[in-house]
Amino acid sequence: MAEPTETGRKVTTSDRIKDLILSDGLRPGDLLPTEGELCTRLGVSRSNVREAIRKLSTLDIVDVRHGHGTYVGEMTLDALVEALVFRGVLSPGDDLDALRDVVEVRKALDHGMSEQIVHALNGTENSELKDLVDEMTALAADGKTFPQQDRAFHTGLLAKLGNSLVGQLVAAFWDVHTAVLPKLNVAVAADLEQTARAHGLMLEAAESGDAEAFRAAITAHYEPIMRALEQK
Amino acid sequence: MAEPTETGRKVTTSDRIKDLILSDGLRPGDLLPTEGELCTRLGVSRSNVREAIRKLSTLDIVDVRHGHGTYVGEMTLDALVEALVFRGVLSPGDDLDALRDVVEVRKALDHGMSEQIVHALNGTENSELKDLVDEMTALAADGKTFPQQDRAFHTGLLAKLGNSLVGQLVAAFWDVHTAVLPKLNVAVAADLEQTARAHGLMLEAAESGDAEAFRAAITAHYEPIMRALEQK
Repeated sequence: MAEPTETGRKVTTSDRIKDLILSDGLRPGDLLPTEGELCTRLGVSRSNVREAIRKLSTLDIVDVRHGHGTYVGEMTLDALVEALVFRGVLSPGDDLDALRDVVEVRKALDHGMSEQIVHALNGTENSELKDLVDEMTALAADGKTFPQQDRAFHTGLLAKLGNSLVGQLVAAFWDVHTAVLPKLNVAVAADLEQTARAHGLMLEAAESGDAEAFRAAITAHYEPIMRALEQK
Repeated sequence: MAEPTETGRKVTTSDRIKDLILSDGLRPGDLLPTEGELCTRLGVSRSNVREAIRKLSTLDIVDVRHGHGTYVGEMTLDALVEALVFRGVLSPGDDLDALRDVVEVRKALDHGMSEQIVHALNGTENSELKDLVDEMTALAADGKTFPQQDRAFHTGLLAKLGNSLVGQLVAAFWDVHTAVLPKLNVAVAADLEQTARAHGLMLEAAESGDAEAFRAAITAHYEPIMRALEQK
């Protein structure tokens, strides 16, 4: 049921369901037409519709709630995380290139958004981020890791921007990072206290509008993990 | 056929096929066991295996070549592009937030990788990138757009780094950007000549090791599109 587009790519049933979502003005959380209605409206077979719905479900473009119906999905980046995690662990042998790539992208996004973050936080007080820094500092002093607080800090910082994509991407790469790390048996030589402290420095610099100090704190933040990866 | 993991998430058949790829030491392009062999080894039904293979195929973790068999996939980010393009066009009305988000992420990645790019290109000559700049300049002088050359320039620049993920991400976001732009009916008020020139300035700055000039050229490069988006 595929017809060529201007660019030569085939228009698949899943493309046509996406067009229908747009033309019907449906939004995330809205109910899609039933399988039977989709067959009639698109003039395709039930197995075609089912396969397309499965594909769109994998991409979180639709959300199949068994016994209830199929809804427009939230379009999270979960599929990206799944694909990247697997790519990360598939890198050959003890080669840590894939993890290093992910950490570099996280660092690049933090650096690349630094101006906007400092602009957004300048002159504000963010007690919820400060509390996270205090928790990380306390855990580090006990020699404990703090993945939840770390993730909440980074996503909380980026939530101050109006850009939901960058927040989702950073969260996605954070999840890849933490999922791949233990599978690769990296000795986390990361200095916990330095990492905890760097979060505090990032927050202070952003709140005082000091972009240069903010960037220095980002570099300090990634320094322990980059060092651990270089040493392998 | 799902059993809970330590973190409470269900282990699905697709997770188990991924584990099998790892434990068998398979690499992209390698042939997977047949559907029947997968059923036997994993102790699950044929319909379970088929559904899992479809899902992994959507994520490009496996590549189903009809009549030949199923292979380990190349794990491209095509699924991410598809999901993001749709998210971009789904943003309500003439709201351009989604495209603005994508352009900001592209800009952040360019800025965030600027140090590494300048480091990699310092003292080199890159005639293939220079040729692309010349083509863009000539097309701009004729009032023509230059999407192919533009994409080739950005991916070519990032190919100088050892980080394949950032190159794929930038290419993915570039594709989202160009796919979403016409669908949103944005008048591309972008100054073609300024954009063409900015690519030349980026290249010159990187080759002469001038990180500050490189970052200024990135800002100039995105200035026309950012201005067009702000005006809406």
